[in-house]
Amino acid sequence: MSNHDLTCKHKMARQNGIVQPLLTDLYQITMAYAYWKSGKVNDVAVFDLFFRNNPFQGEFTIFAGLEECLKFLQNFHYSDSDIEYLMQTLPGNIEPEFFAYLKDLTCKDIKLSAIEEGSVVFPRVPLLRVEGPLIIAQLLETTLLTLVNFASLMATNAARYRMVAGKNVSLLEFGLRRAQGPDGGLSASKYAYIGGFDGTSNVLAGKMFNIPVKGTHAHSFVTSFSTLDDIHSVILRHAETQEPCNLLDLATEWRNRVSSVIDISPEEASDGELAALISYAIAFPTGFLALVDTYDVKRSGLLNFCAVALALNDCGYRAVGIRIDSGDLAYLSVLARETFEQIAEAFKLPWFSKLTIVASNDINEDTILSLNEQGHKIDCFGIGTHLVTCQRQPALGCVYKLVEINGQPRIKLSQDVGKVTIPGHKEAYRLFGADGHALIDLLQRSSEPAPGVGQKVLCRHPFQESKRAYVIPSKVEHLYKVYWKDGRVCIQPKPLLEVRERVQSSLRTLRQDIKRNLNPTPYKVAVSDDLYNFIHDLWLQNAPIGELS
Amino acid sequence: MSNHDLTCKHKMARQNGIVQPLLTDLYQITMAYAYWKSGKVNDVAVFDLFFRNNPFQGEFTIFAGLEECLKFLQNFHYSDSDIEYLMQTLPGNIEPEFFAYLKDLTCKDIKLSAIEEGSVVFPRVPLLRVEGPLIIAQLLETTLLTLVNFASLMATNAARYRMVAGKNVSLLEFGLRRAQGPDGGLSASKYAYIGGFDGTSNVLAGKMFNIPVKGTHAHSFVTSFSTLDDIHSVILRHAETQEPCNLLDLATEWRNRVSSVIDISPEEASDGELAALISYAIAFPTGFLALVDTYDVKRSGLLNFCAVALALNDCGYRAVGIRIDSGDLAYLSVLARETFEQIAEAFKLPWFSKLTIVASNDINEDTILSLNEQGHKIDCFGIGTHLVTCQRQPALGCVYKLVEINGQPRIKLSQDVGKVTIPGHKEAYRLFGADGHALIDLLQRSSEPAPGVGQKVLCRHPFQESKRAYVIPSKVEHLYKVYWKDGRVCIQPKPLLEVRERVQSSLRTLRQDIKRNLNPTPYKVAVSDDLYNFIHDLWLQNAPIGELS
Repeated sequence: MSNHDLTCKHKMARQNGIVQPLLTDLYQITMAYAYWKSGKVNDVAVFDLFFRNNPFQGEFTIFAGLEECLKFLQNFHYSDSDIEYLMQTLPGNIEPEFFAYLKDLTCKDIKLSAIEEGSVVFPRVPLLRVEGPLIIAQLLETTLLTLVNFASLMATNAARYRMVAGKNVSLLEFGLRRAQGPDGGLSASKYAYIGGFDGTSNVLAGKMFNIPVKGTHAHSFVTSFSTLDDIHSVILRHAETQEPCNLLDLATEWRNRVSSVIDISPEEASDGELAALISYAIAFPTGFLALVDTYDVKRSGLLNFCAVALALNDCGYRAVGIRIDSGDLAYLSVLARETFEQIAEAFKLPWFSKLTIVASNDINEDTILSLNEQGHKIDCFGIGTHLVTCQRQPALGCVYKLVEINGQPRIKLSQDVGKVTIPGHKEAYRLFGADGHALIDLLQRSSEPAPGVGQKVLCRHPFQESKRAYVIPSKVEHLYKVYWKDGRVCIQPKPLLEVRERVQSSLRTLRQDIKRNLNPTPYKVAVSDDLYNFIHDLWLQNAPIGELS
Repeated sequence: MSNHDLTCKHKMARQNGIVQPLLTDLYQITMAYAYWKSGKVNDVAVFDLFFRNNPFQGEFTIFAGLEECLKFLQNFHYSDSDIEYLMQTLPGNIEPEFFAYLKDLTCKDIKLSAIEEGSVVFPRVPLLRVEGPLIIAQLLETTLLTLVNFASLMATNAARYRMVAGKNVSLLEFGLRRAQGPDGGLSASKYAYIGGFDGTSNVLAGKMFNIPVKGTHAHSFVTSFSTLDDIHSVILRHAETQEPCNLLDLATEWRNRVSSVIDISPEEASDGELAALISYAIAFPTGFLALVDTYDVKRSGLLNFCAVALALNDCGYRAVGIRIDSGDLAYLSVLARETFEQIAEAFKLPWFSKLTIVASNDINEDTILSLNEQGHKIDCFGIGTHLVTCQRQPALGCVYKLVEINGQPRIKLSQDVGKVTIPGHKEAYRLFGADGHALIDLLQRSSEPAPGVGQKVLCRHPFQESKRAYVIPSKVEHLYKVYWKDGRVCIQPKPLLEVRERVQSSLRTLRQDIKRNLNPTPYKVAVSDDLYNFIHDLWLQNAPIGELS
């Protein structure tokens, strides 16, 4: 079986396990019955799935989760045991024909239009437009929201970390143990990768999604060794000559030589730590990356690491680097880099100065910004809790709103104008300027012609009459494509790696001031003049009779 | 197939899908290889799983996730495709015998001791103690942490909501759409129930865990009806006589009568809303709970609801109540209760004043406290985002530390004294006072005799020499039981409902000042004099040589 087959098989196992029609709120099913009972079986509806505010006090969001939504539509089916459970759970007077109706439901009459996965998206612009029978479109609501909300939140969070870390630093997701449940961890690994991370520590995510997996050892590995006697075997064969090398002797000798270069007494260093690092190096001579903060980075970890790295060098192997998991990461990374440079100089090994420094203690966006200011020397961040739980804002607020039924537009009014929905079947366009930057997203009624390149387009704020401007786009992108129709996927989801690239290329079309961490400029989302009038006419028709509130 | 069989089947499907040995950090597997390569196959270790700080600025935590941990141990097995994936992923020079070793690994030599699931627990007291072969105990780390961290965080969060809401209010979990992934939603539903919630909207959670599921309809149901003409069928048969009743005629007539009682013109009320409520009532005459804020609670929703509820009453059915999902919940709930009381009075229907009022808009602990102060009239809260994502603190920081290897204690030192581990194989006791309240948790070396009832026990702060006190317990509870040994579960996990009851009975043993929301008193965790000396002797032995830092 190929690796790809395996991946698919495991994806499906997971999919079948949890993402199924019963993964929904009960009220979707009670509403389905009430619709069915009210003769609305043939009603057709349009629902928009969108969010109202960008997360993390930012001004952009990355849309993700589409592939999972398509798999959900494809597999949508109530099993016999689902029906049995619903018959037990719903009130006794439900007509049996309704369960027969549910049993036969599929998504063959649903049409799903969406923005491309991995795109930069903005408030109020629907990410998904679901059209089809009212009952089935309603039954999809909760699951689609669940699949889009966390995926998009995670991808956005990861993309933000990628931006503050810069292009030359590697980012690894280390969050499984603190994630919100096993699948929270898997989703985090997947969407962190899409958002711009380079790998994960989560082995199952690596297997299921073909994401690079990374990892070395923990403090417990180091503390499991007490003295040099705890080393079982000291022999490593030379990478080329295959001659046996005594790594313990070499490392002990190097520790003395290094100690005089960096002015740290070998007696201050832990022998248990040295034993652990030698054992680790014998197991992984090509991938020696050592945790150096179990005892004391300066007085023990760096000295022991350098000794073993130089011993490995004698055996024809180059060490990879170190990981620091506590303390002042800016100071310790600078100290480590200086140490590596001293060794490189003293022993004429220029590559030693370029050893990798990984840092991994409770890192978030602000920590990275602060480390940047302090001039850290870190090559790679391992990021856990703050990334995978999206600590700064652990939920994205996507909603799913009815905007049309049987060809008639629907508007949801609210005393909070930000919660008024934009009614009707709409299209979304992104207008670009001559420099390639996105200028504005424009929502129009689907009956309107698309805005033309080089033509003056009136863009209006959806609710504030005075806010309007003409835009002359150099490029116009229609944001929706039909991904699901007639019971099948129309556009195959792209491989993860391409979605990941889409995130970066999409972000490049945004002006820097929209992306920045501190006080970013809001990106504009507008409606056409036609849609503006349509909204406000409908608003007026639905205005309450009575006093002004 | 019985409902219980179905439940088990689905639990296992889920379990097999995600919780498996590869759901771990890669470094566990690289460490396993380095241990194996270092001849540590027969080393035996003791690991403690514990947290250092209570979440949510509180002073207690609820331990949950044990049942899932036991299932994980039971199913622990690397499949052929897992081994194939690891062979592709680890460096090429790994010895093939290691993969054969992994292939045969099971948890038969592991012994797992734990505190009872659903118990109140405190910082530094191990929740799990894992003993057995070093390699396998190490391989369990990440998955056990994943299973305990979110489960305990969620159960604690739910228990806190239960405390602020009080006993007489129902709590429903409505968070699936905002949860961190599909399984994040399922875990949230399960552990919210354990923590004291009364039900969930999540149908799959209901099916899998046998949790009560609740839900009615959404705003989209109401907006899908525009006028009274949208009603398909107006006939409902009388509950007893089976005579056909015209619910539309009855409700229209009642709307006029009610409007004069509550002084709201029927013309201000939405006919689409009335049509929706009539249709919903015909579908669910025994469970009529209506959302009343689609247009205007005061001018439309309450009037329409009362009209339909009174019409239902004519047909022999009693309405359940209303849900309010926006606006000033204190004011609107008081308004609704007054309205129900007016109707009860006017039409001599005393039960009408007791109709259920559900509130469900962006509710968190502080909202409930504020509503309590304002004297709300809400009977039930539906809580989503803040509950299921644990917005106030989305991760619990459980760690898994090596405390003994081959009978030798291990201590992890740190410049931060709070991060120093308590070494060795230990027991934990809870000492109770004469009034039944828990006084203190005491950690001892396993070689010490248990503290005796009525005897003076010296309890010491683990790190501060001057902090000590004698306690004379009226009751002593040994906190650990062996749950897994010799390859099988020794104590069957209790049904969810019993774990849920355990949470409440365990919380009752805590003094109120420890549980309160604002500035709670810390509960004390102490060590015996013997353990104190053991820690500090070991600390001294491991103290670095060199300058004081």
